[in-house]
Amino acid sequence: MKRINIGLLGLGNIGTGTYKVLEMNRAHIEKTTGLNLEITKILEIDTERDRGIAIDPGKFTQDPRDILDDPGIDIVIELLGGIEPASSFMHTALKAGKHVVTANKAAVAANFELLTETAEKNGALLRYEASVGGGIPLINAITTALAANEFSELLGILNGTTNYILTKMTEEDRSYEEVLKEAQEKGFAEADPTGDVEGYDVANKLSILVSLVFGERVLPDDIPTTGVSGITKADIENAEEAGCVIKLLASAFRDDEGVHCFVQPTMLNKQHPLADVPGEFNALFLKGNAVDDLMFYGKGAGPFPTASAVLGDVIGIAKEIKRESK
Amino acid sequence: MKRINIGLLGLGNIGTGTYKVLEMNRAHIEKTTGLNLEITKILEIDTERDRGIAIDPGKFTQDPRDILDDPGIDIVIELLGGIEPASSFMHTALKAGKHVVTANKAAVAANFELLTETAEKNGALLRYEASVGGGIPLINAITTALAANEFSELLGILNGTTNYILTKMTEEDRSYEEVLKEAQEKGFAEADPTGDVEGYDVANKLSILVSLVFGERVLPDDIPTTGVSGITKADIENAEEAGCVIKLLASAFRDDEGVHCFVQPTMLNKQHPLADVPGEFNALFLKGNAVDDLMFYGKGAGPFPTASAVLGDVIGIAKEIKRESK
Repeated sequence: MKRINIGLLGLGNIGTGTYKVLEMNRAHIEKTTGLNLEITKILEIDTERDRGIAIDPGKFTQDPRDILDDPGIDIVIELLGGIEPASSFMHTALKAGKHVVTANKAAVAANFELLTETAEKNGALLRYEASVGGGIPLINAITTALAANEFSELLGILNGTTNYILTKMTEEDRSYEEVLKEAQEKGFAEADPTGDVEGYDVANKLSILVSLVFGERVLPDDIPTTGVSGITKADIENAEEAGCVIKLLASAFRDDEGVHCFVQPTMLNKQHPLADVPGEFNALFLKGNAVDDLMFYGKGAGPFPTASAVLGDVIGIAKEIKRESK
Repeated sequence: MKRINIGLLGLGNIGTGTYKVLEMNRAHIEKTTGLNLEITKILEIDTERDRGIAIDPGKFTQDPRDILDDPGIDIVIELLGGIEPASSFMHTALKAGKHVVTANKAAVAANFELLTETAEKNGALLRYEASVGGGIPLINAITTALAANEFSELLGILNGTTNYILTKMTEEDRSYEEVLKEAQEKGFAEADPTGDVEGYDVANKLSILVSLVFGERVLPDDIPTTGVSGITKADIENAEEAGCVIKLLASAFRDDEGVHCFVQPTMLNKQHPLADVPGEFNALFLKGNAVDDLMFYGKGAGPFPTASAVLGDVIGIAKEIKRESK
């Protein structure tokens, strides 16, 4: 059994989900991979909150150097969210040759070159499957199994909050304000929903996908972005009459002039595979010149689906560490 | 640029598609991966057929040893189909430490332990993404990005011919015999369609998936299998009246008694994500205890989609060769 020591930055909802899934499936992971994955240190101020799991209090630290400078830590999982200090912490870890796994779309979208180049230079691995599409294994597929394709088009539903709002508005004939309020009460939307409803969250994710699918860097701020806050009941009804539904789509395509991308509410014909993607689900539609049309569908957010992606990345890196140590 | 020499067993439709996609996307693959992939030898009797590609006649051989015994060949792509001699050729290649990529579900399903264990023992890699779901990156996702999950259920539409037949019967209110005949004329069904329409092709694919998803070996012959040849117009109408469609499903689930699996025509509620999968598409629905519901959808057959999977496997192995040679 190969032991892998992990430092965890942030024990919020996603961090707690990751800790829980690792414990829940520990026996399965050990049996199928021969890996003993141990979260040995956790950067987190709130050590008192009841998270429904037993964590040795000695694992907590308030000093990032206890993780970033510890030569015994093989992999750093970054789940702080936000561009800083997350990006700086990842940069420091990669410079020290530590492997990094993150779910942080804002940090990866803002600092894609810096982080990927630092990883490359220092022989470290950087993985960020959870940053786009939650548990759906999109990034892994694009960068490995689909690597023989040139892609011409991508279309995605990449934000669960707005897809939930649009689904409810459509199915229950209710206004944006009413559904948003309910979503906030149920915890599906944040108290300040701006990042979701104005499409900025999707623009971050699209920026990452465009880098991988088309090999072009477009910063999130340079992606024309319209959210769903202006969508009215009348818009939904007009779409309905045209045999369509309105979805907040991330779109990118390549033509002779280059790569074009944008985030906007779009009328989708009900026959389109993305038209049926309900509630908090995410989906990505891709067109490659060998594989043709491809669609992935699954839970785009939430502690457990996100943990699935984070731990998939951790296991992938841990397998490489194990193989190299042979 | 790292040069990788490939021996190709079989230049039928899939082999020709693989050769074409590699040439079509050569510049893209070289730029994104730094790999120079060269098919240097081809085992094929029919050297005269016009395949629409220029191939140096010196690459052809009729002796498998020219590939299996050549120390200069890094990767063997097996696209002969059928259990033998394909399995023996792959076994020989793996024993010699050569990496193997195959699209051959019958051979992998029949000889899963032998081939995977021989690969493991000899430090060789065996990849078979194209054997299930054509171009859809299922196997890669299950074995890598989803490795932190325990799965409880899988449901798949894994045969394009039967899905095409059932879709046409449903949409055009036509009989099985009529649609099959048309599918044969159009080349969507083989002259002897038994393997497809009786579900044996799906049983091979399900056997492979059950090994990977549940870690249990069930031989194709031990999977209760019913095909679509007995489906009548009345069956389709009855399903329609119940708000359902009939799909040929590969199903597997785990309960307290173990893993259960079967292949059979199934009435699916029209709301189910698999109900809309049309024509020659394939799809797989999975439920994991972290990721929850997940669906993949794409072209399950055809030279180019299958080539996408074959070359994705080749690139994955070639990247490992490149990294290890550093």
